[in-house]
Amino acid sequence: QQGFRIQSADSANVARFRGTLHFDGRYFPDDVTPATADTWILRRVRPTFEGTLNKIYDFRFTPDFAGGRTIILDAFLAARFKPWATVTAGKFKVPVGLERLVSANDLRFIERGFPTSLVPNRDLGVQIGSDIIGGVVNYSIGYFNGVSDGSSSDANTPNPDVENDTKGDWAARVFFQPFLNSDNFALRGLGFGIAGTYVNSTGSTTSSLLPAYRTPGQQTFFSYRATTAASATAPAVNGTIADGERLRWTPQAYYALGSFAVLGEYVKVSQEVSRLTPTAGLRRATLDNSAWQLQFAWFATGEDQSFRGFTSQSVFDPSQGTWGAIELVARYHELDIDDDAFVGDADSFANLATSASKASAWGVGVNWYLTQNYKWSLDYDVTRFDGGAATGDRPDEKALFTRFAVGF
Amino acid sequence: QQGFRIQSADSANVARFRGTLHFDGRYFPDDVTPATADTWILRRVRPTFEGTLNKIYDFRFTPDFAGGRTIILDAFLAARFKPWATVTAGKFKVPVGLERLVSANDLRFIERGFPTSLVPNRDLGVQIGSDIIGGVVNYSIGYFNGVSDGSSSDANTPNPDVENDTKGDWAARVFFQPFLNSDNFALRGLGFGIAGTYVNSTGSTTSSLLPAYRTPGQQTFFSYRATTAASATAPAVNGTIADGERLRWTPQAYYALGSFAVLGEYVKVSQEVSRLTPTAGLRRATLDNSAWQLQFAWFATGEDQSFRGFTSQSVFDPSQGTWGAIELVARYHELDIDDDAFVGDADSFANLATSASKASAWGVGVNWYLTQNYKWSLDYDVTRFDGGAATGDRPDEKALFTRFAVGF
Amino acid sequence: QQGFRIQSADSANVARFRGTLHFDGRYFPDDVTPATADTWILRRVRPTFEGTLNKIYDFRFTPDFAGGRTIILDAFLAARFKPWATVTAGKFKVPVGLERLVSANDLRFIERGFPTSLVPNRDLGVQIGSDIIGGVVNYSIGYFNGVSDGSSSDANTPNPDVENDTKGDWAARVFFQPFLNSDNFALRGLGFGIAGTYVNSTGSTTSSLLPAYRTPGQQTFFSYRATTAASATAPAVNGTIADGERLRWTPQAYYALGSFAVLGEYVKVSQEVSRLTPTAGLRRATLDNSAWQLQFAWFATGEDQSFRGFTSQSVFDPSQGTWGAIELVARYHELDIDDDAFVGDADSFANLATSASKASAWGVGVNWYLTQNYKWSLDYDVTRFDGGAATGDRPDEKALFTRFAVGF
Repeated sequence: QQGFRIQSADSANVARFRGTLHFDGRYFPDDVTPATADTWILRRVRPTFEGTLNKIYDFRFTPDFAGGRTIILDAFLAARFKPWATVTAGKFKVPVGLERLVSANDLRFIERGFPTSLVPNRDLGVQIGSDIIGGVVNYSIGYFNGVSDGSSSDANTPNPDVENDTKGDWAARVFFQPFLNSDNFALRGLGFGIAGTYVNSTGSTTSSLLPAYRTPGQQTFFSYRATTAASATAPAVNGTIADGERLRWTPQAYYALGSFAVLGEYVKVSQEVSRLTPTAGLRRATLDNSAWQLQFAWFATGEDQSFRGFTSQSVFDPSQGTWGAIELVARYHELDIDDDAFVGDADSFANLATSASKASAWGVGVNWYLTQNYKWSLDYDVTRFDGGAATGDRPDEKALFTRFAVGF
Repeated sequence: QQGFRIQSADSANVARFRGTLHFDGRYFPDDVTPATADTWILRRVRPTFEGTLNKIYDFRFTPDFAGGRTIILDAFLAARFKPWATVTAGKFKVPVGLERLVSANDLRFIERGFPTSLVPNRDLGVQIGSDIIGGVVNYSIGYFNGVSDGSSSDANTPNPDVENDTKGDWAARVFFQPFLNSDNFALRGLGFGIAGTYVNSTGSTTSSLLPAYRTPGQQTFFSYRATTAASATAPAVNGTIADGERLRWTPQAYYALGSFAVLGEYVKVSQEVSRLTPTAGLRRATLDNSAWQLQFAWFATGEDQSFRGFTSQSVFDPSQGTWGAIELVARYHELDIDDDAFVGDADSFANLATSASKASAWGVGVNWYLTQNYKWSLDYDVTRFDGGAATGDRPDEKALFTRFAVGF
Repeated sequence: QQGFRIQSADSANVARFRGTLHFDGRYFPDDVTPATADTWILRRVRPTFEGTLNKIYDFRFTPDFAGGRTIILDAFLAARFKPWATVTAGKFKVPVGLERLVSANDLRFIERGFPTSLVPNRDLGVQIGSDIIGGVVNYSIGYFNGVSDGSSSDANTPNPDVENDTKGDWAARVFFQPFLNSDNFALRGLGFGIAGTYVNSTGSTTSSLLPAYRTPGQQTFFSYRATTAASATAPAVNGTIADGERLRWTPQAYYALGSFAVLGEYVKVSQEVSRLTPTAGLRRATLDNSAWQLQFAWFATGEDQSFRGFTSQSVFDPSQGTWGAIELVARYHELDIDDDAFVGDADSFANLATSASKASAWGVGVNWYLTQNYKWSLDYDVTRFDGGAATGDRPDEKALFTRFAVGF
């Protein structure tokens, strides 16, 4: 069921009501995560109202009420002027990261992997793009306000959902599925592409324009040195700020063969930063942070894998004796901070005693699709860190997550 | 009219759009309530999108935009796996207080009585429960993040809609309507039950995990001593915190006979607290706060009373000369704080000069049901206090409230 | 397309889903506006759920997710008891300003003119009103919590969507379209009226109840002196507060003739203020601020103008070779602050070095209606100021705005 619809007699005007509700339980059987992080949490609460007017004009409204706050997640209008040119304006996903572009309902793991931490999420802007050549090529190019790595414009500081600085970001992506319409069963499910963003802008001590990075358990493990105000016992200290070009690029690929699928992506962010340090004056550097992942999924119940959803063969209904679909998933992913970030002791851009220089994680999980729209998931992720603690390495994070999900 | 619906041809998938809008006028003809409390206020603004997929899988989205802020009120998914077992996960009403479980549109008074101040409102968790034996018994048992007396998880501090402390709360309820399917007219409308919650957890000076209590006019009349920071003229003082077990239990009953109904409930909360006091060191106690109410309702126009809604015999339409339904209501309710809370002067858990030790209130009201979905109400509540003022008793509160309501 | 609808078989119950999404690009080619004001912005994100029950009872829910925050914009219930008497209760537009009462989707300019800065926007209250005599007269009279000039109750301080002070505001409006049902083509499109509000209330140094005024580019150019706390180097200084009567009145007119239309309005606000000044003791004054505008619109593609929407003759669809409708617009508007506000140097009510005493603006624009529901607009407004800068006049603001709009 892809939403509930109301339409005019001639089908020129259609409204669809859809929803995503992800309710998670989190448990950390480790020695590093605070006990208050063991919690029930509304991870996504997204009723959606979308539709089409006059056949080629689209719109979408998707608020998100998750996590104790309310934002507008998607709010855009689009026009499919030509088969090869759709113009979209508003707030929507910036076309960069592969797993980021997977719909939240089609994710194989409860939380996305490290590469997603380096690419934009939602932002405000205007984009042109489309599937062309029968879907063999998909392209997008857009101009956006700009967001930090892994972030949405609703998290922009000091003001959400508007421009932070004086420059917009360019983003572009091209993705190929060369055998999409071929008879070659082994190659039909192959797709690969590349995407990137570019901006040249400068932050400030009140709005650094720099990101923090989080673990698979959604705990912050890396952040740049922050600006601190003067206190009775210590002078003010300037933190690190974005200062110059930021270039992200990410090669990416997906391959499905029968009930088996693999997703791989690599992301590198080159960010020029500066810091007015306590002892070394103004320091500048270009820091290259990178991440990659490999993700595997297999339907134990035999359904076909696909980049966009799948078709379940049955519904779990005890009164009918049917069981739905079972999927097993595994992944390995890493995020590596540029070592130059930690050089210079108190003058460094980041503090190795509190921020790890590398995180490596493996995870396994099971997804039980009770219906096409209801899913119960259980994931276990273990993350190892280099640095990040006063005594050396931050202890391993062990995260056991479960999710009750509805998406339609 | 119970909402607007869209459904698939085979009725396996149904979406319903419902709404609750309560717009209140408040006027206090007394000497204690501040003049700014005389106001128009949006008390409930709740559009709802709910539905069923594959016949047994349910979902609901209900945001609330009332009172100048936005929260997610209800957000859950449920599966009716067996006639005797519905599993619900997400944010919804914790199954404890009887008047709390009455739908906001079916309330007989504009504001609920004192017992509701002691039981949970909405929380995040997982529950199993159902009507069994043809509705003669209803049971629920669940595990939740936990909330303060009378509170919802969106009011949790420091972070809303997640776990506050390191422990979840257990909640359970059983309710009997032994004559529901009987021919005995006098007994058919009788229901009674018992419910409770349990947790063992410890607050902190930044998140005490303790409640404040409010009058029928929604003014705070009791709170525990709060932690205050050091100032130029006074040292820091620690407030009272939850420290140990909290056990709530509540026997409850409802009885309807023709156009007359009575609702009664009693609640007791036993809460272990502690305070690092200025002069007596660490003080500990188990405080028992309790409340009860009796509420009466009578349809002057003869309609039958029922725990869930009623059926109006006409619609108010001046052009047709029809008038709708008229209901008269009355109640008495009390909330009694454990006297041990006030022992110890400056070392006490609560300050009798600012917090009352007991509140007793009576109220009367009239509900004019213009249609099944539109209601105009007028209530008058008078509350008497023991203590709560520097000079002795807090002056009586007199609250005249009116409500324009739509619910469908 | 005026929304998507679900209705009962007898049409007594109808639900409508509507939406407004305005996505704007802002660029300031001037020397005064900060560079961060050049931005993409979600100006209006308003899904609407409204409907009718039992033929004469209406309701509406309209949240707004624009600008990085969420509010409830409209939330009311209404009953059309008699053809000449509709009672409305809740949050809705206060019936005063003419351009304010134009639906956001029917605005001819991206941002409304100066007169709208002096009249209320949305507020909580109860109103009676209706079209009478076949629409020749429309009247409204209501009692509201009260809002500052140009403001909505969600911007009330210290608490949004409730009463700020101890008094409600009366508002009333009457509008005539004497030739609405006449055969006289030249006069049929003529309407004129008058409206006003009245309150007598007193602010405080924490909630002054006084407005600030903004330019067509949405930058603040006038505000009263604010209360400042004592610092290490300066004593506390009291700001200006509302203190006594506030009377707004506004004559207004609209005229449409074929594809040409003109809208004119004048607003005057008389506000009693006071300030406990640093050197002159308590100063009091009645300040008269006023604004007016003339706005012209012309359909280059020949469509008929009308106060409420219009009917497009075609849809822009490159595959069909059709182009939609094109409209050209122009306006002149002024806002003039009472000169007495600036008298008294440091004891004045407002500071001429930071607040302008007058703003005069002209603007031109083009609206391309791709469909009845999709619009692309481009506006250019130039505003000249008297005073408002330390060196004399605040430099001219030049604002180039574009809008991608959907409204249905």
